[in-house]
Amino acid sequence: MKTNVIVGQSGGPTVAINASLAGVIRQSMRSGEVGEIYGMLNGIEGLLKRRIINLRASIKYTDDFDRLAATPAMALGSCRFKLPPPPHEAYEQILQIFKEYGIGLFFYIGGNDSMDTVLQLSAYFKSRGENIRCVGVPKTIDNDLPVTDHTPGFGSAAKYIAGSIAELALDSSVYDMFNVIVVEVMGRNAGWLTAAAVLARDAGLGAPQLIYLPEAAFDPDDFIEKVAGYSKKNQLLIVAVSEGIKNKDGEYVSAAGASKDGFGHVALAGTGKYLENLIKDRLGCKVRSIEFSVLQRAAAHYASGTDIEEAFKIGEHAVVAALHGQTGVMATFERVSNEPYLVQYGTVPIEDCANLEKTIPADWIVDGCDVSAEMVAYLRPLVAGRAPHFEEGGVPSYLLLDKTIVKR
Amino acid sequence: MKTNVIVGQSGGPTVAINASLAGVIRQSMRSGEVGEIYGMLNGIEGLLKRRIINLRASIKYTDDFDRLAATPAMALGSCRFKLPPPPHEAYEQILQIFKEYGIGLFFYIGGNDSMDTVLQLSAYFKSRGENIRCVGVPKTIDNDLPVTDHTPGFGSAAKYIAGSIAELALDSSVYDMFNVIVVEVMGRNAGWLTAAAVLARDAGLGAPQLIYLPEAAFDPDDFIEKVAGYSKKNQLLIVAVSEGIKNKDGEYVSAAGASKDGFGHVALAGTGKYLENLIKDRLGCKVRSIEFSVLQRAAAHYASGTDIEEAFKIGEHAVVAALHGQTGVMATFERVSNEPYLVQYGTVPIEDCANLEKTIPADWIVDGCDVSAEMVAYLRPLVAGRAPHFEEGGVPSYLLLDKTIVKR
Repeated sequence: MKTNVIVGQSGGPTVAINASLAGVIRQSMRSGEVGEIYGMLNGIEGLLKRRIINLRASIKYTDDFDRLAATPAMALGSCRFKLPPPPHEAYEQILQIFKEYGIGLFFYIGGNDSMDTVLQLSAYFKSRGENIRCVGVPKTIDNDLPVTDHTPGFGSAAKYIAGSIAELALDSSVYDMFNVIVVEVMGRNAGWLTAAAVLARDAGLGAPQLIYLPEAAFDPDDFIEKVAGYSKKNQLLIVAVSEGIKNKDGEYVSAAGASKDGFGHVALAGTGKYLENLIKDRLGCKVRSIEFSVLQRAAAHYASGTDIEEAFKIGEHAVVAALHGQTGVMATFERVSNEPYLVQYGTVPIEDCANLEKTIPADWIVDGCDVSAEMVAYLRPLVAGRAPHFEEGGVPSYLLLDKTIVKR
Repeated sequence: MKTNVIVGQSGGPTVAINASLAGVIRQSMRSGEVGEIYGMLNGIEGLLKRRIINLRASIKYTDDFDRLAATPAMALGSCRFKLPPPPHEAYEQILQIFKEYGIGLFFYIGGNDSMDTVLQLSAYFKSRGENIRCVGVPKTIDNDLPVTDHTPGFGSAAKYIAGSIAELALDSSVYDMFNVIVVEVMGRNAGWLTAAAVLARDAGLGAPQLIYLPEAAFDPDDFIEKVAGYSKKNQLLIVAVSEGIKNKDGEYVSAAGASKDGFGHVALAGTGKYLENLIKDRLGCKVRSIEFSVLQRAAAHYASGTDIEEAFKIGEHAVVAALHGQTGVMATFERVSNEPYLVQYGTVPIEDCANLEKTIPADWIVDGCDVSAEMVAYLRPLVAGRAPHFEEGGVPSYLLLDKTIVKR
């Protein structure tokens, strides 16, 4: 007897999350054990409102898997709703809906908070004696999930950041005068994305010269001294800074005016502006700050080939794992070697990663303003290659899902 | 007897200006009439300091033309120096240097202000009875040069803007709530780049819904009324706004805190922020402003194939024109047809375009917040295709010139 699949997406958008969705759909279609393939709109929040669609309806040609994989953001929509700890009526409601729709396999593509949802639901279904398997598929540009070598979405954002900094370095070296660009990169507590800026040095301009991560305390006086040093010998200085850098007391340097999101995270902004003003006030030299903003997580036209391919495969792997009886697990990458770059796909018990954050090891940070050769070796394969990108008349062409609600 | 060529770049960087440089070099190399091919570093300002390099030294393989064409910003560097009106000692100095280096052909790749330099120098050389031919090669992301159908560099910036807005539209439609993104686009007085945002609608998300250009007076009350209207029926509203929009009295809405550049232009910033705050204050809905900043003129990885190819060819065409005896002219595109898209290369007397600005015709602007079908038809071919992009290990690989100064 066939079982039905449901899949959802949660958390912040990335360039790769629809590739994982495409992987889940393709592997489900290939399997003789799967009947219907449902998608929940806007994650668990939409599920509770029975906003469920039929994903088979949106895949008409083989090509559509690639077109969905090349579409950024979240085809199913997202939510910022975190399932409250049990006991809570939501669990009973979800079980009821899953039964109505004959769901035996549930996939949730998301970050730390979404993995918590998978953990809670799998435990609840077990406690009720229900054979509904729950598998998490990792996704986050922040690369801050533990156990897995890296996360889908990270490589593409890293590529965008490194490539854009290389372009900025050329752009700001055209005039014959010292000038500073401060580039603010996303990342509250984990500096992986900011660290990826180091790869821009391969383009030959030497930028970014300084890299500041949330994992190392930021000292304004030391920073200004370093900038002054560069001003004596350089035409160009690019500083890559994480939005989440903190002073020696652990306070965000941009804490003033911060607000909180639905998960209670502090929403930061203005770290780049803060450094820009610091340089202006103390040194008076030409300085400009640039925020990559959400472009760094949305730029599908510049996605890493490795990232999109892996995101697709980890989605497929999650389905294989669930069909083999696994539940309460998250699909993972395990790096076998750097050269040649090889990864194995696996799973880990979800309690090993839900609600935990992987930050940069202290010995991969150099002098508080640079990263080590180990970091470079770790990062390099993740940005390799360019992913397929579809255009019509020079403008992106996306696969948008048929969002007709399925009634049962 | 062979004559020597010198070429310089001036004004702001674009993605296409090195393609025109590559075109000048290749056509000069092909010609039996050209001896040395010199480049001036940092434009006329560097020329006056005899900062002259040998461009043949940097081209070792056929492939290097394409690699130079794929390198953004300005391989020769730029300047913000405007040649003072004659009489001025600089003219005599330049003539002296040109004679020392045996220059018979001078090419200057730049925008309005750079064309003024070509105009002044060609007139001066004529008045001195010198057969030194001066040809301008247009370049500006702003597309504000008259006579030529469009300018190299514009198509790539337009593609970046349209494509990035399509990506932002997907990114900001993932949550099930109304939110506004205000995208600030470069352009002081001419709104061509902001108008190009309209092409993002082809991606199927309907964004941007509102487009505000410097050519139409901006009315805050009308704007807020429109945003409020969208808030009642939409999940997503993207507003594309030129940094240079003005109120009904002709004042920049972002005039507060503006500074001036070397040409006396007002340097604007914060128009997007201004609209963001306006929406926050009056409507209190979720809104975020994003500045594309210099990324829109530097993103070689997303260059328009049409733009880079045309920029290359117009550089070649300038050399052909000069070798045919033309001077005091600017190379131009003349559009023959839209479908199929065909351009002819020509020249015009430089006084027809230097110091003049081409803005958007009034009948291409709709209701002060949109553009017409003629504008769409005009824009579409310019963003078509993707230009070659070179990578090594996932990071851009550029052709950087050998900047050894040549002494005479």
